[in-house]
Amino acid sequence: MDTRAPAPKLQFDTDPTKYRHWTLAVDGEVGRLTMKVQPFGGANSELELKSNSYDLSVDIELADAIQRLRFEHPGVKCCVITSAHDKIFCAGANIYMLASSTHPFKVNFCKYTNETRLAIEDASQNSGIRFLAACNGATAGGGYELALACDEIVLIDDGSSTVALPEVPLLGVLPGTGGLTRVVDKRKVRRDLADAFSALAEGVKGKRAVEWGLVDAVVPRSKFADTIAQRARELAAKAPRAERGPVVKLDPISEYRHVKLQLDEKSRRAELTVRGPADAKRVEDASFWPLRMARELDHALLRLRFEHENVGLVIVRTEGDRKIAHQMGELLLADDGFMREVRLNLARTIRRLDVTARSLFAVVDRDSCFSGPLFELLLACDRSYLLDADGVEVWPGSLSAGALPGWNGLSRLETRFLADPQRAQRVLAAAKEGPIDATAADKLGLATVFADDIDFEEELRVAMEERASISPDALTGMEQNFRFAGPETLATKIFGRLSAWQNWIFIRPNATGERGALTMYGKPERPQFDFRRT
Amino acid sequence: MDTRAPAPKLQFDTDPTKYRHWTLAVDGEVGRLTMKVQPFGGANSELELKSNSYDLSVDIELADAIQRLRFEHPGVKCCVITSAHDKIFCAGANIYMLASSTHPFKVNFCKYTNETRLAIEDASQNSGIRFLAACNGATAGGGYELALACDEIVLIDDGSSTVALPEVPLLGVLPGTGGLTRVVDKRKVRRDLADAFSALAEGVKGKRAVEWGLVDAVVPRSKFADTIAQRARELAAKAPRAERGPVVKLDPISEYRHVKLQLDEKSRRAELTVRGPADAKRVEDASFWPLRMARELDHALLRLRFEHENVGLVIVRTEGDRKIAHQMGELLLADDGFMREVRLNLARTIRRLDVTARSLFAVVDRDSCFSGPLFELLLACDRSYLLDADGVEVWPGSLSAGALPGWNGLSRLETRFLADPQRAQRVLAAAKEGPIDATAADKLGLATVFADDIDFEEELRVAMEERASISPDALTGMEQNFRFAGPETLATKIFGRLSAWQNWIFIRPNATGERGALTMYGKPERPQFDFRRT
Repeated sequence: MDTRAPAPKLQFDTDPTKYRHWTLAVDGEVGRLTMKVQPFGGANSELELKSNSYDLSVDIELADAIQRLRFEHPGVKCCVITSAHDKIFCAGANIYMLASSTHPFKVNFCKYTNETRLAIEDASQNSGIRFLAACNGATAGGGYELALACDEIVLIDDGSSTVALPEVPLLGVLPGTGGLTRVVDKRKVRRDLADAFSALAEGVKGKRAVEWGLVDAVVPRSKFADTIAQRARELAAKAPRAERGPVVKLDPISEYRHVKLQLDEKSRRAELTVRGPADAKRVEDASFWPLRMARELDHALLRLRFEHENVGLVIVRTEGDRKIAHQMGELLLADDGFMREVRLNLARTIRRLDVTARSLFAVVDRDSCFSGPLFELLLACDRSYLLDADGVEVWPGSLSAGALPGWNGLSRLETRFLADPQRAQRVLAAAKEGPIDATAADKLGLATVFADDIDFEEELRVAMEERASISPDALTGMEQNFRFAGPETLATKIFGRLSAWQNWIFIRPNATGERGALTMYGKPERPQFDFRRT
Repeated sequence: MDTRAPAPKLQFDTDPTKYRHWTLAVDGEVGRLTMKVQPFGGANSELELKSNSYDLSVDIELADAIQRLRFEHPGVKCCVITSAHDKIFCAGANIYMLASSTHPFKVNFCKYTNETRLAIEDASQNSGIRFLAACNGATAGGGYELALACDEIVLIDDGSSTVALPEVPLLGVLPGTGGLTRVVDKRKVRRDLADAFSALAEGVKGKRAVEWGLVDAVVPRSKFADTIAQRARELAAKAPRAERGPVVKLDPISEYRHVKLQLDEKSRRAELTVRGPADAKRVEDASFWPLRMARELDHALLRLRFEHENVGLVIVRTEGDRKIAHQMGELLLADDGFMREVRLNLARTIRRLDVTARSLFAVVDRDSCFSGPLFELLLACDRSYLLDADGVEVWPGSLSAGALPGWNGLSRLETRFLADPQRAQRVLAAAKEGPIDATAADKLGLATVFADDIDFEEELRVAMEERASISPDALTGMEQNFRFAGPETLATKIFGRLSAWQNWIFIRPNATGERGALTMYGKPERPQFDFRRT
């Protein structure tokens, strides 16, 4: 199954004028995202995306729209997500696209859609945008998972439209985008009903869908539009006040200004370098360093995931003026809507790093600028190599006290020092006094490896070679278990638990083998299973 | 990889007179479990178990010994776990055994060893038995994972003995028994050090092992025995007082008295019937119904897992006198050591059911006795089929208020009604008034499907056939996500998250393919990897 066509080249940078599948309309406090997938407008134009089924190109537009709602439409307090089709809300991820994709692409596709759904929930929780899924027709698989990411789900009651997760009975795989977790852990559907629902290919409709807690309401066709409009107004009115500042137009990424991604495909290694800000001034537009830098970093991570599958190790470097970077970090803590949105965006980007299935080694040397917001990159890495020399410093700022939480809800310092929260406090206290030199940083527990000029390059070289020799699967499994130490959240359950089960099932012959259910979908023969239970 | 030899037939019932690999010695408050694996004494006598490496037969003895410490040695407050070899504590699971096993066996083997380690922790937390790992030599892989399950780890400081998790760098798989989770979540080792440790095949020794938090102390050979003896006495002295009642000899299981397991291999279905007690009298020996029944049920579940891999659906039935079963449940709540041990054992057994990768449908009809402790079986099932007829009743008791928690730490009623804890209370309140008839039980939310005589058998038949047609892998993934709704614990992290990553990695060509690391172990050629990261 690993000989199939490679993933298509994708554009991760888009804007509403380029959308092929979505329209974003704003009317006062209410936004409206309408999905109408162009059947031959996906990333692979030879694959038909029927019934509002989606591929990655569709989800990239959705992710972009959510970002723009936050920055470009600060007045929006509720966003309706609906479909322009008459009897179909969304049929989920396109099955033929999935069945013909490589395993790495499938996994990365699911990860990306998970991040987009979690970004919807982040916008609801932190930015006062309530989401209303207006399911105006059949809502299946990833379509229902999109609805589950919303605050409310209203399903049309037309005698036929259902919500459904048909993946298990029909395709022999798990729903790919957090569906199982959200059914029992977010909507808290009774687990036996969740079982019955998820084993029922045709789904559940009408009153039963409400009784089981799968949707919040069902509404007849004649009243659907009015009800949605009214509930949207109500949701907007009840949304927590979270000022989002002035309108900030998000410019195209095109060329990186603050991020450099250098690839060495032969050694399967990348160097990811982030340059600190040139000054610590507040600028209320998309050129503001923490916003632009994070957007570039985000873009670079997506390229890495989808275009450089063989790269297993990322050396994370920083450069620039540590004092300015530190000042920028303190500036970022300002208590206003614009700054909060910039912080939230940065936090989401670093969380994208947390679930990037590549080994991450931070290198802290004389050129480094692990200072202010960039200090978080050190903490996000699997290891840090710290040069024992004069002039080597790190300088955490107040941001590291919890303003940029990881998926587990803790600050990265708290996660690092789970055994003794005092140690996180000691790092923050030391940084209040000024930059922390190499020896002090090591004593504070910030170095995995601390070596002087004589040994440093050799230690790093050996570590890089060792890493490159280890099974990439085992590394992914190990890293995902270590990166999510501490408390569990909906997100860690999705990325830590659910994704692992998906990965396993995706690669089982029962799903993707010659006679597996995913392979056989749409063919006249039935799938054949090895029924041994594991 | 699915054409290999089937799992050997195993005896799950043993006692110290039959042990081939362990000795259990008791001296006052201190017990001592000494491991000396018979190289050709495992389940497959043609496979050499070198270096105190283990197979399932070794772990069955360990599990038995832990049970006997609780019931037969109520005076023991600390148990030392050590090895009879001079330079080896334990090399972990035997790699050739793993490499030559089928995927279902590997998964079930890991699950069983996980349950045994969690039983050690349960004995520490609830029964006042502290465990001290006396690592008198090399402690690798599953050997270190066994140590991690103990309250304290002391490693010999002889210049060479290390603790190690060499699975990732050496075998391309994850440690199979909770190692990664316990390193960062139980011992709270810094995640970057955990990364360095787990990628280092040779492991960590001496002072560094203490500094990193991998062990609690290192002790030179000359002082090792004395130090262990002293620490064991101290641990015993500090152990929380938890009376365990009189000595209760655990008799052999041989024939079932209260449990019936009927297999229909053709339809890949089993009927598991548990008969309620004949009377509600306290008997302080192994014939006491809740103890004997749970031990039989435990035994039946292991047979199901290892001997009937194709059976995917278990119909769970009960029979007997509901009033007596209810009285027995109330009796079980008595606040003394014997009863507490019986309760804890029952809770462990039902948790074994929770992680048995088979679909579980409870059938509640006129003959049923889902009453007292047996009511928990209904809640443990994925679905319940309730007959709408006179004479059909369920009768939960006070035990269901939290005395038999699931892996997530909640009662099964709480997990069922996550959305509204009041509903759990309503069930308990109704049961205080007497048996709950079918209509009331349905209203209280205890039925997945509620059907009258005309439809009941047909509903059940269709559901069983549907279940039998679905991919067994997808069902396992779905069930494992729904059964662990709610809060996360070390155990849910291990069974929900870590196990899934293991399953995935075990089946990847990079581990078990022709040139995978596990397959190639011990051969002169190096493994070959597909380096695409997922």
